Amino acid sequence: MKTCQDGVHLPKCTDIPVVGTAKIKNPIKFGRFVDEDDAVLVKITRKNVAKTAKNKKTPKHVYFEPAGPRDKIYYDSSKTKCAVVTCGGLCPGLNDVIRAVVMTAFHEYKVPSVLGIQFGLAGFIPEHGYDVIEMTPDFVSRIHEFGGTVLGSSRGPQDPEAIVDALERMNVSILFMIGGDGTMRAAAAVVKEITKRGLSISVVGLPKTIDNDINFASPSFGFDTAVETAAIAIKGAHVEATGAPGGIGMVKVMGRDAGYIAAQSALSCQEVNFVLIPESPFDIQGENGFLAALEKRMKSSGNAVIVVAEGAGQELVAASETTDASGNKALSDISTLLKEEIKQYFAGKDMPISLKYIDPSYIIRSVPANANDRIYCSFLGINAVHAGMTGRTGLVISRWNGRYVHIPMETVTLGKKRISTRSNYWRAVLESTGQPISMQNE
Amino acid sequence: MKTCQDGVHLPKCTDIPVVGTAKIKNPIKFGRFVDEDDAVLVKITRKNVAKTAKNKKTPKHVYFEPAGPRDKIYYDSSKTKCAVVTCGGLCPGLNDVIRAVVMTAFHEYKVPSVLGIQFGLAGFIPEHGYDVIEMTPDFVSRIHEFGGTVLGSSRGPQDPEAIVDALERMNVSILFMIGGDGTMRAAAAVVKEITKRGLSISVVGLPKTIDNDINFASPSFGFDTAVETAAIAIKGAHVEATGAPGGIGMVKVMGRDAGYIAAQSALSCQEVNFVLIPESPFDIQGENGFLAALEKRMKSSGNAVIVVAEGAGQELVAASETTDASGNKALSDISTLLKEEIKQYFAGKDMPISLKYIDPSYIIRSVPANANDRIYCSFLGINAVHAGMTGRTGLVISRWNGRYVHIPMETVTLGKKRISTRSNYWRAVLESTGQPISMQNE
Amino acid sequence: MKTCQDGVHLPKCTDIPVVGTAKIKNPIKFGRFVDEDDAVLVKITRKNVAKTAKNKKTPKHVYFEPAGPRDKIYYDSSKTKCAVVTCGGLCPGLNDVIRAVVMTAFHEYKVPSVLGIQFGLAGFIPEHGYDVIEMTPDFVSRIHEFGGTVLGSSRGPQDPEAIVDALERMNVSILFMIGGDGTMRAAAAVVKEITKRGLSISVVGLPKTIDNDINFASPSFGFDTAVETAAIAIKGAHVEATGAPGGIGMVKVMGRDAGYIAAQSALSCQEVNFVLIPESPFDIQGENGFLAALEKRMKSSGNAVIVVAEGAGQELVAASETTDASGNKALSDISTLLKEEIKQYFAGKDMPISLKYIDPSYIIRSVPANANDRIYCSFLGINAVHAGMTGRTGLVISRWNGRYVHIPMETVTLGKKRISTRSNYWRAVLESTGQPISMQNE
Amino acid sequence: MKTCQDGVHLPKCTDIPVVGTAKIKNPIKFGRFVDEDDAVLVKITRKNVAKTAKNKKTPKHVYFEPAGPRDKIYYDSSKTKCAVVTCGGLCPGLNDVIRAVVMTAFHEYKVPSVLGIQFGLAGFIPEHGYDVIEMTPDFVSRIHEFGGTVLGSSRGPQDPEAIVDALERMNVSILFMIGGDGTMRAAAAVVKEITKRGLSISVVGLPKTIDNDINFASPSFGFDTAVETAAIAIKGAHVEATGAPGGIGMVKVMGRDAGYIAAQSALSCQEVNFVLIPESPFDIQGENGFLAALEKRMKSSGNAVIVVAEGAGQELVAASETTDASGNKALSDISTLLKEEIKQYFAGKDMPISLKYIDPSYIIRSVPANANDRIYCSFLGINAVHAGMTGRTGLVISRWNGRYVHIPMETVTLGKKRISTRSNYWRAVLESTGQPISMQNE
Repeated sequence: MKTCQDGVHLPKCTDIPVVGTAKIKNPIKFGRFVDEDDAVLVKITRKNVAKTAKNKKTPKHVYFEPAGPRDKIYYDSSKTKCAVVTCGGLCPGLNDVIRAVVMTAFHEYKVPSVLGIQFGLAGFIPEHGYDVIEMTPDFVSRIHEFGGTVLGSSRGPQDPEAIVDALERMNVSILFMIGGDGTMRAAAAVVKEITKRGLSISVVGLPKTIDNDINFASPSFGFDTAVETAAIAIKGAHVEATGAPGGIGMVKVMGRDAGYIAAQSALSCQEVNFVLIPESPFDIQGENGFLAALEKRMKSSGNAVIVVAEGAGQELVAASETTDASGNKALSDISTLLKEEIKQYFAGKDMPISLKYIDPSYIIRSVPANANDRIYCSFLGINAVHAGMTGRTGLVISRWNGRYVHIPMETVTLGKKRISTRSNYWRAVLESTGQPISMQNE
Repeated sequence: MKTCQDGVHLPKCTDIPVVGTAKIKNPIKFGRFVDEDDAVLVKITRKNVAKTAKNKKTPKHVYFEPAGPRDKIYYDSSKTKCAVVTCGGLCPGLNDVIRAVVMTAFHEYKVPSVLGIQFGLAGFIPEHGYDVIEMTPDFVSRIHEFGGTVLGSSRGPQDPEAIVDALERMNVSILFMIGGDGTMRAAAAVVKEITKRGLSISVVGLPKTIDNDINFASPSFGFDTAVETAAIAIKGAHVEATGAPGGIGMVKVMGRDAGYIAAQSALSCQEVNFVLIPESPFDIQGENGFLAALEKRMKSSGNAVIVVAEGAGQELVAASETTDASGNKALSDISTLLKEEIKQYFAGKDMPISLKYIDPSYIIRSVPANANDRIYCSFLGINAVHAGMTGRTGLVISRWNGRYVHIPMETVTLGKKRISTRSNYWRAVLESTGQPISMQNE
Repeated sequence: MKTCQDGVHLPKCTDIPVVGTAKIKNPIKFGRFVDEDDAVLVKITRKNVAKTAKNKKTPKHVYFEPAGPRDKIYYDSSKTKCAVVTCGGLCPGLNDVIRAVVMTAFHEYKVPSVLGIQFGLAGFIPEHGYDVIEMTPDFVSRIHEFGGTVLGSSRGPQDPEAIVDALERMNVSILFMIGGDGTMRAAAAVVKEITKRGLSISVVGLPKTIDNDINFASPSFGFDTAVETAAIAIKGAHVEATGAPGGIGMVKVMGRDAGYIAAQSALSCQEVNFVLIPESPFDIQGENGFLAALEKRMKSSGNAVIVVAEGAGQELVAASETTDASGNKALSDISTLLKEEIKQYFAGKDMPISLKYIDPSYIIRSVPANANDRIYCSFLGINAVHAGMTGRTGLVISRWNGRYVHIPMETVTLGKKRISTRSNYWRAVLESTGQPISMQNE
Repeated sequence: MKTCQDGVHLPKCTDIPVVGTAKIKNPIKFGRFVDEDDAVLVKITRKNVAKTAKNKKTPKHVYFEPAGPRDKIYYDSSKTKCAVVTCGGLCPGLNDVIRAVVMTAFHEYKVPSVLGIQFGLAGFIPEHGYDVIEMTPDFVSRIHEFGGTVLGSSRGPQDPEAIVDALERMNVSILFMIGGDGTMRAAAAVVKEITKRGLSISVVGLPKTIDNDINFASPSFGFDTAVETAAIAIKGAHVEATGAPGGIGMVKVMGRDAGYIAAQSALSCQEVNFVLIPESPFDIQGENGFLAALEKRMKSSGNAVIVVAEGAGQELVAASETTDASGNKALSDISTLLKEEIKQYFAGKDMPISLKYIDPSYIIRSVPANANDRIYCSFLGINAVHAGMTGRTGLVISRWNGRYVHIPMETVTLGKKRISTRSNYWRAVLESTGQPISMQNE
């Protein structure tokens, strides 16, 4: 965008591509448009500022472009057709995003049609035979009171060419794609295909991950609700653990690559003794291993609550599969492995235990968003429409340093956010649980 | 009780044993005592009344004795020591019962001591080394806000002689036993041992079963809360089922012998398509079987929600164990069996499905009681103390036909309550789900 | 009904009028119909049974007719048009009743049309111009997830002739009226007008009162949810009371003539010190009065929680209006009066207090029904349709002694249920609060 | 702090005073201390960065010091006595802050004693006779499950000399003051008195305001919970409004100077038609006034939901007091004024309305914190202890741009945060409600 170019005094702003020049006056009534100087500094600690100040070659500061309505838009809103698709696993807040997109498109821009693509990217492929839904304000009016997605979802990629064929066939001008990093990569491929064909179709991404592991989203939508819901299961595990001699409550939560739900819900409960996350490898056996630490806890307190992220200890799961080649079924996930190991260990020690296992994953994914996430999702949806109407494409809407911003699509898929085990955040988890700093033998 | 004997005009009341004659004036301030004429007719439909009217030999009507304070009590309350024990699995409301016993004993009768036996009947056995808790009003004041039992619990019987030894050693006059039918049988054995030794110790039972399968309790305490909590998981299953192509949500709930939680929570949700309970046997395969019905549902609606009681289809589980003798691990429960069969069936039909399984059992068991159960449990506890103070023993406190009553201990353990599959209640479930009346092939 | 007449051995059953003889085979699939011997004894304590046994002139026992489907129905269901109207104040569960009526009419009886009358009886009057809603299964499918009534409601009577005109005009066969005792009296007037005109229109009542003061309903629908919601406000009052020096939390709840919500929610919270209800008159001033008791509590504990039913102390309110004739605005409700009196009293004693007042009434009325009430309301609605289809009229559906029954309309409007201040129930409230048995000076 | 001084390359960091030099090795186990370069830039938009870059005289950038443990501390933790006091109105999360302070002091620093001052600043004054509580980990272990403050609170200032006398008498080294801006001013006065006496006592503030109007806190703790709870009342108002002809639901929420709760809870509900806040003055009468807008809404939709912040329209309230000098009691708050005006206006138009008013303030204040606020409050408490142990004083702990920071006490009391009515945030509220941009006649 022009307004984002580096001037004499103005530092650099990350670029967002456009499908064409925005020349049409924005029709929204309430007439205050984004001041491009509201661009938000990406890195805000002194260390970073000092570093960039020294390095003369790189731009002094990098900013994210502010989200919000512009005074000029690209699409003639009275003729614009939008489409929304939700992809991947469920996550609280999907319906809120959908609702906000539809409401903003209809009420602010008087867009005549917002299509709902059913069951994810598969919905673009005619062979699947899924109908497209004409979403009206009336249709979406109360969907935010329900969990899940009113459009349905599905996993897996589809051919970008087939998707763009469908967009052309349906005459869609702006496509809103809500999904995880796989979906964002698919979105990038769709943008590429659109560019190749020279079409004027914008693609705006709304990154979704219940695991909260998206780069440059703090946190991802639905995460707060997920933590609140996980806490219910953890409370149950605590009650069960203290309710029986040798009581151990184990809760598995989502978190394939990052343990945010496990860590955050443990912090919110104050009743967890072990949090096992992908970022902090551990041994099961050995004098510093998990079982030894658990035994110590059981001896001192008589009970324990363990929260394990599904992606924790994957190397242990892999090892168990290898070693377990004697014909038995290999343990396919960390919670099953832990349950087996715990039972064997305490049986070997002749210490009776009572292990209760809770997997609340599908409950967590499917609850309606809480107030906080409802508002967050609304702003994501609102800002997605504002961005799309200007002709911007290949971007995602996010909140960074407390402000809604535009981020180039590839930026969020470059890597994943992880918990630093050296951070004050993880320290607080260790303090709250009392678990050892490390459960590795060496 | 004398006051319960059949007079000229008065019909028979079921007898409750006593450890001695109640001679002491009841010290409670608010001076209205139970009118024994408040005895509650056990069977109240016209059919039953007519039947008994014809049969001259049996008593015309059978009544349950009303619960509540009597003007004369047996134990000198200033010297009475009470004890409370909670046995078996967790159930919402345990802490409320404990609280009410302690509060009533202290505040109404000025009893000097109420002991809490930890971790079930094991807590009576010195070798286990569990401390006894002196429960004061202050100690129990807020426990009703938490799930589980503040005393802990455990499963399994203990030697009645050892239990009575402990009661003698601790100088306990009234023992309140909260537990399932195993516990009630243990209580009966304890009463027998007490009688054999000629001791003045009362045993009052408070029957507990989250499955709601206790005879003469309508419903059992905690059941309402359990249903409310199960409904959350069912909602999740519904959201998941509708959120994916071929979505099937399956929820397993408690119900070893009776499917009340499954049926009731399905009724409360209105989003369930199949309720599988122990009382209604079904086939999995075959043209009238469950899988055929499920396929029909999937073809017409594209998704399905299944609620299965853990005790449903036990003959199928047993059969799968027999047939599966080829070295593979037999499927040990109905939900695992169903998941496998569903996957195979639809794979064979080349219909892609997305099956999401939720087991909310430990969450359901461990939540705090809702308002309704809190009040119910309070009255059970209050009435248990009133009963114990009169020297009654070998009885349980229950609610029958809307009134709190005394029931002889053996009466509640004689059988179990089941859902009649010919009742209007089950009809309502079938109507609500739309499932076939029978899923048996013959 | 014929089947209800008193045979040689069969005791009397309360009569329900019919608009004609049921001759048509009931089309419902699941073919088990009501056994009229399931009639439910109205009074079930020994005292009542003995009393009726002695009195030779009156029928030995009085029964309520069981609710449920009959093998013969009166209306040809393929041509039957139903209508539903909701009247009076909101109450949790209204939408659940509506939903169950619509679902049962459509799915069980294949009734072609169920009309929704908007905004209460006013909806029958053309001048108001409210549209009638054609309610389909799809329309009602999720309404039970929302509070209030999807039809709207209004207060006040309308001319029975105008209502019957509307029923004739719309060709309605069965009218379901959901409302309080005013509505039930209106329903009786409508039945009378229908009879006068010799029309074949059934009127089935579904008594509604959040106050739980309906005769022969135990409890009224929505009451359980109301108690659960009131408890939230009481918890707040408790937190406020203990959070400030001289803290007093006062909560006003519904209960014009009966204090059930006040009493029941106090029992569910265990944190209330005073429950003021219409059934237990009290003095404000004087050595035994409320203020003296409150002062005692404040001196001993430093805080107090008061729950007051809106209908408590009406004679005091009336008196204040009389004495307050000096031109000031009279205090129109008991909570305002109490607040003023408390402030003056403690100001006079120079004891600083911090009084926090909560009126959660409109929140309580408008929440969605909890699981328990959802099921209860479903059965009321289902049974209302079964009753209407048989041609029964002038009856209400209720639950009595745990069973769903038909009750003649006039029976429920003859009087109101009240809390007996001499009952064990009220004793439990006094025990739980610690308030004096009486706060009257004489 | 030394580490904060402006070096050649390092920009300026706002200064925090200390009571002495930190020389003692920090005893906490988990040994990663704050990197002072983590200082957080205060203003992060491009506009601000550019502006400061041009102005040579002022420091280029201003940073807030990062919160967290330092490698050197000032107080010998084995001899340090801490004290905690909570002041002003209740707010969700108070107990969580208290709990975190106690847990961190005991478990991390092995501090021997943390005193709880009861009932706010009054607790320091011996004449009030409030005991001081020795808070142990056991004492605070479950307090986060309850609303309010376990210490009690009170309003109003106390003599700083008397407070410092008490601190000296009790031998307190670090005082944690939790309260609103009045309390922060009191804290500053206490710091001044401590400095005057040359004492080594640190005072750490934890700013509390349910209104979310604290400068440099985004948002204030408890705000998220408050919004979630206010949403329940708004839902009720919506149900009531749609449930009656001419239904108007009005909800008053907190917000004396800033309308954040009103705006945010309206955004979270999507069912509000008018949000009235202090920042946006409005007329009641006149063709552009509130009543005209309300009439328009009532005519088009038949119902309306109004959320009014207690501080909205204060000039109207003041005016009504002046004009209403004819002997009638002046209307003392905006909601009363609005209710009266609405009733009169529609009575004058002969449009029947049904106005339902809900004031959920005391419920909102007294609920326990939700998961999000529980975690936030924990970190505030943890970081307060870390700050205090280093000898820092006259500072508050806050979260700014997503990071926990130290802010000089006077900075947060200099002004109050307000909603900008020209922001995208307020635009979203206007879009969501559909209310006019302005309701002023000129």
